[in-house]
Amino acid sequence: MLNKGQSEEELFTFLSRKKREDIDHDFILSSMCTIPHSVAVRAHCMFMETNLGDPGLFPGTYSLERLLIRRFGSLFHCAEAGGYATSGGTESNIQALRLAKVQKSGTRSPNVIVPESAHFSFKKACDILGLEMRRAPVGKDYRMDAEKAASLVDKHTIAIVGVAGTTEYGMVDPIANLAKIAQQHDLFFHVDAAFGGMVIPFLDRPVPFDFALPGVTTIAVDPHKMGMSTIPCGCLLTRDPGLLTTLNIETPYLTVKQEFTLGGTRPGAPVAGALAVLDYLGTEGMRAVVAGCMKNTGRLIAGMETLGFPQAATPDVNVATFVCPEDAVPGPWRVSWTRRKHLRIVCMPHVHAGRIEAFLKDMGELHA
Amino acid sequence: MLNKGQSEEELFTFLSRKKREDIDHDFILSSMCTIPHSVAVRAHCMFMETNLGDPGLFPGTYSLERLLIRRFGSLFHCAEAGGYATSGGTESNIQALRLAKVQKSGTRSPNVIVPESAHFSFKKACDILGLEMRRAPVGKDYRMDAEKAASLVDKHTIAIVGVAGTTEYGMVDPIANLAKIAQQHDLFFHVDAAFGGMVIPFLDRPVPFDFALPGVTTIAVDPHKMGMSTIPCGCLLTRDPGLLTTLNIETPYLTVKQEFTLGGTRPGAPVAGALAVLDYLGTEGMRAVVAGCMKNTGRLIAGMETLGFPQAATPDVNVATFVCPEDAVPGPWRVSWTRRKHLRIVCMPHVHAGRIEAFLKDMGELHA
Repeated sequence: MLNKGQSEEELFTFLSRKKREDIDHDFILSSMCTIPHSVAVRAHCMFMETNLGDPGLFPGTYSLERLLIRRFGSLFHCAEAGGYATSGGTESNIQALRLAKVQKSGTRSPNVIVPESAHFSFKKACDILGLEMRRAPVGKDYRMDAEKAASLVDKHTIAIVGVAGTTEYGMVDPIANLAKIAQQHDLFFHVDAAFGGMVIPFLDRPVPFDFALPGVTTIAVDPHKMGMSTIPCGCLLTRDPGLLTTLNIETPYLTVKQEFTLGGTRPGAPVAGALAVLDYLGTEGMRAVVAGCMKNTGRLIAGMETLGFPQAATPDVNVATFVCPEDAVPGPWRVSWTRRKHLRIVCMPHVHAGRIEAFLKDMGELHA
Repeated sequence: MLNKGQSEEELFTFLSRKKREDIDHDFILSSMCTIPHSVAVRAHCMFMETNLGDPGLFPGTYSLERLLIRRFGSLFHCAEAGGYATSGGTESNIQALRLAKVQKSGTRSPNVIVPESAHFSFKKACDILGLEMRRAPVGKDYRMDAEKAASLVDKHTIAIVGVAGTTEYGMVDPIANLAKIAQQHDLFFHVDAAFGGMVIPFLDRPVPFDFALPGVTTIAVDPHKMGMSTIPCGCLLTRDPGLLTTLNIETPYLTVKQEFTLGGTRPGAPVAGALAVLDYLGTEGMRAVVAGCMKNTGRLIAGMETLGFPQAATPDVNVATFVCPEDAVPGPWRVSWTRRKHLRIVCMPHVHAGRIEAFLKDMGELHA
């Protein structure tokens, strides 16, 4: 049985204490999530009880999801793209490979080619879907080697995956080359832009990674990362607006009769939050956010190099990595380490210029 | 590209208009979700930015997830049960079958036996995991026929699924018999109590459905249904506290090194919300909520029968079904229909006594 019940005051005193045990975002340098934008929080609260799993009951909220997909379609050079709001990059990546598997359902012992730098969610997806995962090596620049990827293709290959903004080094794979290879072999080509999809379009010189490249089939992008939305909000975009219906299953007793999503009940609140940020900031606002993050990344790299910690890669997006011993980072700071043991810092919007200077100061004092 | 950006006032005028297009909960009689409890909303807002996908950054929030699992373990007669907070019943059901598949990884052409009344998420799960789904028929009482389920077992069977509170008719399958059958054949036995798990324990005469039965391996329960939490919050419980680690994959660059969840980034906010409701209401509070919903269900059935619409089943939980033509329900009310074309109404907490009377009045006037 449960406890005997508490007063609201007792309960929130307890919850506040627990909240204070969480790490202060001022010291979180390792996360691809950030403090949500105030308009995202306000919109989230307004749509708190909505359920996109039963869209006929929430036609207003559902229209926001369609608008969010339209915004990303337009941003990614395919205004008519299909798609839906997922629980995040992992669901988007699972669903993309599920689509590839259905499209090539005649293929025995199907395999998928991913860069060795791919996010661990692809391991999860391949395990679940019964796909062989072939890892293509990255070059010295930590980008997927397109030629070596091509050499892994055989008649059992159903899909190639490229990453636009890798989790570890912030690199964009050679998406244009990979798209050509995918087209040559008639393969499904999924771009994991969970992080980079909200960065690259707003850079001064964006590298091609989206539906502007004819070979790109699907794109994952996460508003709850650089989109400063509330968690959970990812999006899966499909060039073919009808592609997702190939995953349809029957859904009796709902207001819709079929469903292609991975989840059933789905929160509308973070979708409203994601759209709110895009529509509030617009192109210029997002450019300013991204420019700030990139400037801070550059400042961090320059400062660390001055302290004797050279960068491990020249990143395409706001992820900085360094040659640095594991005991070199002082106390309250939370950083992370790549599989190759490089120090990794993600310059998210909450890691503003003042925090970078504070971190460099602490590093400088420790290594004076 | 995006639009040019909006003022916060313009944006929220637009969002408010969209919100008004959603159906008023006063008229939603078809949903297993409800308006979240005020303490859930307050707790949700307090933990808005937390990410359980990286628990080392949010140790306070993570401890709330552990407490939530402990509450359900205790409620379900296995204080040491393992588990985690999922995105809802679908993820819980997918993960349960994934666990079964790993446990019986030597089985060729594996199959799973589910009642024909099982939620459509099992179709999704079997499609994704490459499992054959065998549907056991239900009896006249809409409960799974345990003998017929047993007759479907063969050497390729890896799991049986029983439902405690079916989506369509609110029935509890003969879980005790199914648990025995599962034990006899050494099968994984998953109980989908997504709806009933927060109802049955609080009834005057609870039917056995949980870990008190030795054969039960895992249980799905959804706080975002009768737990009055915010969306998304489901839970998967495992009798063996270490079972989930069989799904572990490596997770470099996080504060934890391995992960068994389906999703990556996971919201802490609805988990705090779910725990808040349980701890605020306690056993007596939940009993009162459930008693109210059951009383309203009884009143609705009595009222409908008086109007000439007999009940289709005598439900175990707060789902009422009726023999009733599809055009018999007037305008603003949102009801749903089972696959057998019975009118279906879920008496959730937001469907309070006044709404039942208003619905019966409208039905009476239309059919006077």
